[in-house]
Amino acid sequence: MTPKVSIIMGSTSDLPVMKEAAEILNEFHIPFEINALSAHRTPDEVEKFSKGAYDKGIRVIIAGAGMAAHLAGVISSMTPLPVIGVPIKASLDGLDALLAMVQMPPGIPVATVAINGARNAGILAVQILAVDNKELYEKLLAFKQDLKKKIVKANEELNLVKYEFRVTK
Amino acid sequence: MTPKVSIIMGSTSDLPVMKEAAEILNEFHIPFEINALSAHRTPDEVEKFSKGAYDKGIRVIIAGAGMAAHLAGVISSMTPLPVIGVPIKASLDGLDALLAMVQMPPGIPVATVAINGARNAGILAVQILAVDNKELYEKLLAFKQDLKKKIVKANEELNLVKYEFRVTK
Amino acid sequence: MTPKVSIIMGSTSDLPVMKEAAEILNEFHIPFEINALSAHRTPDEVEKFSKGAYDKGIRVIIAGAGMAAHLAGVISSMTPLPVIGVPIKASLDGLDALLAMVQMPPGIPVATVAINGARNAGILAVQILAVDNKELYEKLLAFKQDLKKKIVKANEELNLVKYEFRVTK
Amino acid sequence: MTPKVSIIMGSTSDLPVMKEAAEILNEFHIPFEINALSAHRTPDEVEKFSKGAYDKGIRVIIAGAGMAAHLAGVISSMTPLPVIGVPIKASLDGLDALLAMVQMPPGIPVATVAINGARNAGILAVQILAVDNKELYEKLLAFKQDLKKKIVKANEELNLVKYEFRVTK
Amino acid sequence: MTPKVSIIMGSTSDLPVMKEAAEILNEFHIPFEINALSAHRTPDEVEKFSKGAYDKGIRVIIAGAGMAAHLAGVISSMTPLPVIGVPIKASLDGLDALLAMVQMPPGIPVATVAINGARNAGILAVQILAVDNKELYEKLLAFKQDLKKKIVKANEELNLVKYEFRVTK
Amino acid sequence: MTPKVSIIMGSTSDLPVMKEAAEILNEFHIPFEINALSAHRTPDEVEKFSKGAYDKGIRVIIAGAGMAAHLAGVISSMTPLPVIGVPIKASLDGLDALLAMVQMPPGIPVATVAINGARNAGILAVQILAVDNKELYEKLLAFKQDLKKKIVKANEELNLVKYEFRVTK
Amino acid sequence: MTPKVSIIMGSTSDLPVMKEAAEILNEFHIPFEINALSAHRTPDEVEKFSKGAYDKGIRVIIAGAGMAAHLAGVISSMTPLPVIGVPIKASLDGLDALLAMVQMPPGIPVATVAINGARNAGILAVQILAVDNKELYEKLLAFKQDLKKKIVKANEELNLVKYEFRVTK
Amino acid sequence: MTPKVSIIMGSTSDLPVMKEAAEILNEFHIPFEINALSAHRTPDEVEKFSKGAYDKGIRVIIAGAGMAAHLAGVISSMTPLPVIGVPIKASLDGLDALLAMVQMPPGIPVATVAINGARNAGILAVQILAVDNKELYEKLLAFKQDLKKKIVKANEELNLVKYEFRVTK
Repeated sequence: MTPKVSIIMGSTSDLPVMKEAAEILNEFHIPFEINALSAHRTPDEVEKFSKGAYDKGIRVIIAGAGMAAHLAGVISSMTPLPVIGVPIKASLDGLDALLAMVQMPPGIPVATVAINGARNAGILAVQILAVDNKELYEKLLAFKQDLKKKIVKANEELNLVKYEFRVTK
Repeated sequence: MTPKVSIIMGSTSDLPVMKEAAEILNEFHIPFEINALSAHRTPDEVEKFSKGAYDKGIRVIIAGAGMAAHLAGVISSMTPLPVIGVPIKASLDGLDALLAMVQMPPGIPVATVAINGARNAGILAVQILAVDNKELYEKLLAFKQDLKKKIVKANEELNLVKYEFRVTK
Repeated sequence: MTPKVSIIMGSTSDLPVMKEAAEILNEFHIPFEINALSAHRTPDEVEKFSKGAYDKGIRVIIAGAGMAAHLAGVISSMTPLPVIGVPIKASLDGLDALLAMVQMPPGIPVATVAINGARNAGILAVQILAVDNKELYEKLLAFKQDLKKKIVKANEELNLVKYEFRVTK
Repeated sequence: MTPKVSIIMGSTSDLPVMKEAAEILNEFHIPFEINALSAHRTPDEVEKFSKGAYDKGIRVIIAGAGMAAHLAGVISSMTPLPVIGVPIKASLDGLDALLAMVQMPPGIPVATVAINGARNAGILAVQILAVDNKELYEKLLAFKQDLKKKIVKANEELNLVKYEFRVTK
Repeated sequence: MTPKVSIIMGSTSDLPVMKEAAEILNEFHIPFEINALSAHRTPDEVEKFSKGAYDKGIRVIIAGAGMAAHLAGVISSMTPLPVIGVPIKASLDGLDALLAMVQMPPGIPVATVAINGARNAGILAVQILAVDNKELYEKLLAFKQDLKKKIVKANEELNLVKYEFRVTK
Repeated sequence: MTPKVSIIMGSTSDLPVMKEAAEILNEFHIPFEINALSAHRTPDEVEKFSKGAYDKGIRVIIAGAGMAAHLAGVISSMTPLPVIGVPIKASLDGLDALLAMVQMPPGIPVATVAINGARNAGILAVQILAVDNKELYEKLLAFKQDLKKKIVKANEELNLVKYEFRVTK
Repeated sequence: MTPKVSIIMGSTSDLPVMKEAAEILNEFHIPFEINALSAHRTPDEVEKFSKGAYDKGIRVIIAGAGMAAHLAGVISSMTPLPVIGVPIKASLDGLDALLAMVQMPPGIPVATVAINGARNAGILAVQILAVDNKELYEKLLAFKQDLKKKIVKANEELNLVKYEFRVTK
Repeated sequence: MTPKVSIIMGSTSDLPVMKEAAEILNEFHIPFEINALSAHRTPDEVEKFSKGAYDKGIRVIIAGAGMAAHLAGVISSMTPLPVIGVPIKASLDGLDALLAMVQMPPGIPVATVAINGARNAGILAVQILAVDNKELYEKLLAFKQDLKKKIVKANEELNLVKYEFRVTK
């Protein structure tokens, strides 16, 4: 099995956030790999990974990092694959990581999701892979239906909260 | 010719920013469409567009908006296509638009680029389309080489600035 | 009993905040409904609700959401009823939700209250309903008197704290 | 003719922003008054105005101010009428005025709109007055249709911009 | 004993912060009073207090409040006495209260200290009273000496922490 | 004539802002001095000034500086005189200077006014000097009356702006 | 043994952060001293220290402080030695300390590291001392190798986390 | 002549800011080089430069970049030389570049100066080179004297501004 998505995190301490990306990929049966590689502490490994990713079958990269979060941008500078960035909250409520990821200069995009938004990073990776995969696209449609069902169900429970002047259907 | 990318902007006043996305798509010979549709002023048109986009051949959507920039998120809520968001600077230096785009809740990602970063939105769209298109991927590799050449050339001009203690190669 | 105010929240996890709006409406004997509807996960339900609200008797809508909080704006885009927005603190201390709610473009207002300020959202709804209801207006005057009495009473307790150089009346 | 809406601004220098509220009220044929009253420089006049507003027929108050913008909150503390706040950009991009208006403590709401968003303040005032005025409500529905037509028309002009790979309908 | 300083807080919940101002005044033997008065919930009491303060002997006012903290500014608008503002951290890390206090328009100053900086508010009140009171001025000089002694003493304890390459005097 | 107030600015480029403090002092006939002294470039002069200020008759110090604005805090560390800080907008909209001035640690207060708020710094200095000077206090009362008259007069001009549905008194 | 690096902190409460600088210096066998000196509470001691540091053999100064963090700038104003600033998180998530340290005016630099980044301050001090010390430079190269090894090792443990669709090497 | 300092900028458009670093090095007769190298557009060149810098005689690196400013951090990850970062104002008033530079994770410091603070970056480079160069250290002492003289001279001109109640020496 060849991985199609590569999840990279700047430090293994980012795993509690980044595993949500892994879970979504698993749910959609997308083969993936996860590794910890630091733009700052293992620059050579990051370079080797980035330059070789396409040829080993990777089609989307998800990179999570905190503080002055350069990882996604550095990878994007070395490969034309789409790179999804997950800013991780480690200081300043994650605003530093968000700005350090999203404010990339012209030429080198990073597809940034919310602070700690690894779950959405996983979904976005699936959406990208679905661009030429109708079956995956239909799974995503079903996934959207599920999101809806969950909130409709939660609403039913909410309807159990009573107030004298509350009107329920 | 069927458009593969759809560029949507919240107001025609966003055109000076958003046309940079169009220019990149043109440069890569990707058929695209551009329209102004507002999440707030034309919600029905946004819905119709979002739900029909896949079937008419669209594979990536680029949405630009300013202030409380909901456009990209609203579109993403109605289609599983990848949606790239361009926060447009209209107030608060664009910070409001950035946060209103990138901070999406779990389930509905927006691939956000820099404030006014429409050029990168265009490149990201090409990168996504290249996921199963080797020819496009190789054009992107060549494009990266060009970026490099431009800065190497600019550096040569920079080397003409003289200071007594400056050492030039 | 027909509800006059509709409280909508983006997720049932917002209930601990949003119930303060319900409590105020209850206190003023205003019939209301509460539901969880997500701009992003149930866009069709939000549309159906917004377009039908006036005809089923709703006169004010209170919408609470966090992060890239689009709910209030999306509802406001689909109905001319006054929409009160409650930004909910879920990340970045609630600043993202505040900006995503209050910074609406011209044409589509959201009457935004403080971060987590659902109690004030409820009071504002009563104030709006009192515009042509003198009895309700007088209840609001009495309510303001109560606010005053509470702080006057609290001050009496404060006067029990002793310091050698403190002068008390 | 008795005014139903009162527009108050902290300084006559706020007129270029606040006149957009006046223009909307004029468009909807709502009788209104405009005055400059400062929470800080004319506190007694603000008090007199606030306490007497209801009895002279005012039903909605729009208050605009910049910097440490207390005007709307101070008025709201003295009347149960709905008070719409317009934060005016005078320093710090208007963030100071926004926070000083919207972050009201429980009990005293201010219905805050966007920084410099006086046009939306005017529309919100009309929405509030329409709560028991079906004719006004229908004018608002028509107004929303006009917003839509304008963007549809603007889009037609946008379609005249040509790129080789642009697809137009 | 006539109070010379009046400490006002917007809510008795601010006491844990504001009591530090009381403690300093006590330490300097300055007669003072403390009361809870809210700009928003008891505007008439605030007005009565502000207009009568000078005549009952008050010479400096210390006002603490959180969120859209108008209290200090409202008092300052009604008396020419110096008003010291203490922004209290209740939301947004206290940044809202800081901006709502310090960004006063020309004509009505508030002498703002740090977020939750009630101790410094007390010291500043003493400094103001010392302007024509040499004895108090000399107590302040001695107080500054004490601050120094405390840090010199703390440094001695710090010198007990050992590292192999640490050099101690 | 002995100066009672000393205006210090970090750089002569701050004069356009700081002269508003001078103008107010002039208007109130308070003898003052103005000098440029930098906490960073002339630390010895700042020390000499701070330690000698009281003895040469200075009773209030006004210090204006931009960026990492240490001037007011450094002076306050060396004298028990009240020090009023004026954060000057030189970068980051003046937010850096505001925080560097107002967030003083316990023991060393700086009475901070608004960004570029030198006029209020001057008024605050007069208010402090009026603590034991009834004549000055009464001048301040008259000054407040003038502020009111100006806005009442400005309002009259505002009343000349016509709209069909505007009601004027 | 003469200390080459001096670690200064504004308060002994900063020790839990600042000791990380000490630990790095210890690890590199650099003789150092640590003291608590406050720019605001012990200005004379700060001056004496700063002016005498070079002559007693100090070559790099590390200064940590929170809030309106002037310590590093004040020291830098009094010595041409390189001063490394560590902004300490005490309020506003440390943003106030960061801006008060890094935004120094031209002429007086502070080499600022991350909020609470004392470990990096220590490493930077070693890097500066290595400018003319090849042996130290080589230790730093080895130190960088260690950083890499740690993350490679952590990655191995990360590879033990199993998902059905995870591909491991 | 071998360069001892290398000035790198992310884009030649940064030259108007970065040339201030060059001017200071020139003033101190320090041989230096300037080049434009982008972390994102020329990653291989940045790597080659960083790894070879020490051996060709470079002892300090100054790196300036804007937006998601990774340049300084990327260089620091590849060399143990001290790297001085200059955040350049290109968007968000430079706050994005500041955070992306200064908030480096443990192990890889960047000595960050003020936004657009290239002059201070140059001075800091000289201070670092002076660590083992007494002559350079003494030039820095003289430079500090000059800073002082300039402000003393500017103050003389300031003394020419007349106000009736101004006291001049």
